[in-house]
Amino acid sequence: MDNCVPHDAGAKGTSRRLIILTEGHSEPITAKTATCVLRYRPEQVVALLDSTQVGKTSGEVFGVGGSVPFVADLESAPQANALMLGIAPPGGRLPQSWRQVILSAIGNGLDIISGLHEFLSSDAEFTQAAARQGVQLVDVRKNNEHDVADCENIREGCLRIHTVGQDCSIGKMLVALEMSIAMNQAGIDSKFVATGQTGIMVEGDGCPIDCVVADFLSGAVEKLVLANQHHDVLFIEGQGSLAHPRYSAVTLGLLHGCMPHGMIMCYEVGRKSVHGMEHVPLKPLDELCEVYERMANLMSPSKVIGIAMNSRRVSADEAEQERERLQSKLGLPVCDVIRHGPDDLVQAVRQMMPQLTVS
Amino acid sequence: MDNCVPHDAGAKGTSRRLIILTEGHSEPITAKTATCVLRYRPEQVVALLDSTQVGKTSGEVFGVGGSVPFVADLESAPQANALMLGIAPPGGRLPQSWRQVILSAIGNGLDIISGLHEFLSSDAEFTQAAARQGVQLVDVRKNNEHDVADCENIREGCLRIHTVGQDCSIGKMLVALEMSIAMNQAGIDSKFVATGQTGIMVEGDGCPIDCVVADFLSGAVEKLVLANQHHDVLFIEGQGSLAHPRYSAVTLGLLHGCMPHGMIMCYEVGRKSVHGMEHVPLKPLDELCEVYERMANLMSPSKVIGIAMNSRRVSADEAEQERERLQSKLGLPVCDVIRHGPDDLVQAVRQMMPQLTVS
Repeated sequence: MDNCVPHDAGAKGTSRRLIILTEGHSEPITAKTATCVLRYRPEQVVALLDSTQVGKTSGEVFGVGGSVPFVADLESAPQANALMLGIAPPGGRLPQSWRQVILSAIGNGLDIISGLHEFLSSDAEFTQAAARQGVQLVDVRKNNEHDVADCENIREGCLRIHTVGQDCSIGKMLVALEMSIAMNQAGIDSKFVATGQTGIMVEGDGCPIDCVVADFLSGAVEKLVLANQHHDVLFIEGQGSLAHPRYSAVTLGLLHGCMPHGMIMCYEVGRKSVHGMEHVPLKPLDELCEVYERMANLMSPSKVIGIAMNSRRVSADEAEQERERLQSKLGLPVCDVIRHGPDDLVQAVRQMMPQLTVS
Repeated sequence: MDNCVPHDAGAKGTSRRLIILTEGHSEPITAKTATCVLRYRPEQVVALLDSTQVGKTSGEVFGVGGSVPFVADLESAPQANALMLGIAPPGGRLPQSWRQVILSAIGNGLDIISGLHEFLSSDAEFTQAAARQGVQLVDVRKNNEHDVADCENIREGCLRIHTVGQDCSIGKMLVALEMSIAMNQAGIDSKFVATGQTGIMVEGDGCPIDCVVADFLSGAVEKLVLANQHHDVLFIEGQGSLAHPRYSAVTLGLLHGCMPHGMIMCYEVGRKSVHGMEHVPLKPLDELCEVYERMANLMSPSKVIGIAMNSRRVSADEAEQERERLQSKLGLPVCDVIRHGPDDLVQAVRQMMPQLTVS
């Protein structure tokens, strides 16, 4: 896989000791990259850099990452050997106010790991500074995908499960990861297939498909499937939504590139409008389930097999009521993989396994 | 529009005298770029370069372009000042055997105009040769789109008509162009909005959306709409198909970016499988009409208002029978814009105009 991001681009390698930059952006959704790396690779993170949060811990601000401290400057985390940019803003641009701290980090000999669309390695000031210091600029989204999909040599014995959603930034990556972890713990050989920069940072491989040239998007996804289909089950991370005014292209190219047998629909309890586009209301969940099935079935048979609710904004009681309401309305298993654990959804996946013609 | 391809990138400008390279690929579908430039800008074309067709005319081989001759070498068309690459292959790669003739053309002082995904201006040998000779390498697909869509400031008084299709390479660009020409001739201010390299070469502006980074595809299309909505009617060129295993991402990003009031469904009589993927059967036309309407309506109200048939492979009688059959089955106007002229479809568009709340 020539364009697969190498293992050491992520936080999975043992050599990285990360300070994660979230300066001025330490809210869980904006700092999605930070919170996911803290959730799944906390042993790699030595500090969070946000001068507005000094004195607090990651656990206090993000609800994950335990005692990892917020610090005001690079010098307060001398053990770090890499600075990771911890946000995933719409459009993927670098906040201008971050330039100086990146240059300081380079000056201190730290590698820089970024998932932005705006590449550090295309910026003359950064590349010159990095060359002088002999440090790496790792742009996780950078890729050179240039192959179209062929719809050939797909191993039908490998079960493909895809997390899809009502919106972006709603938990599709987290659900795929949690389900993959649970399946592996149950002794079933599963793989989380990362399709976005944060997933790649956590898993150590994958393809940043939202940054692929549009003609080659489905081809890039098909390559991910071909490279991983020796596993029994793939959990393919979803992106955006088929009803998202900005990102539906990415969503459909991914859906058609991975041709899932089963889909898990992800949504957030209480979210009414598209994230970052308050003038655009979200489509009802039942309508979206039907739309996803319609579009997936243009390529191969597929169905929504369960609902993953993100209930972080409501109480346990409210979450339980919502779960029962939706289960009865849609006739599908529903759970919050963090609050309830992923068992109900894992069970739905296991029920699909005997259907496969193993080849 | 910072990323709009400038006027002189195409064949519309008066200064270009083109020799079009189709060496070994002089079939109408493969040489789509050549045939469209010959159809709409014949006055700019001095010769076609394909040593296997010498002695024939463009009219004989392509059915367009009249007496433009095929020649065996650059020296046989000394009046040319630019070499245009005349093909649009899947994946957009440069045939290796064409490198030498491109280098010779640069050596002869010709500009090179290419619509391939593989950029001439990223090739060290070409750029060095071009710099030595002071000639231009124009990569029509090259762009730097990096804005997401906002779904704001759209002028509803501008009627947006979008050609969509059952497959790629089926006539969506040609139908949009012919309808725009016919509407302008009828005194209605219309604009053909090019979204692919060939359309851009013909029209002189537009955006090569299949080469845009996926996250910014709908945003790039929205910018095209905003830049052109001072016209009364836009005919927005379609790309691919929502059921195309390779290019559905491009199709949906375009559909959601341009939010058409009306869609013209394009298909080719007799085509059974996806162009270039003979193992993938095409979806039935009525099913596709429903899928396009479903997906378009996720953003704003839209309907298929007519069918453009491409009947080049069948006789006039067969075309007429097919037209009547389909008209009666779908209850929509059907015509081949070349064989029958675009009047029936133009009429369907005119019927939509009073519905608009002009603002």
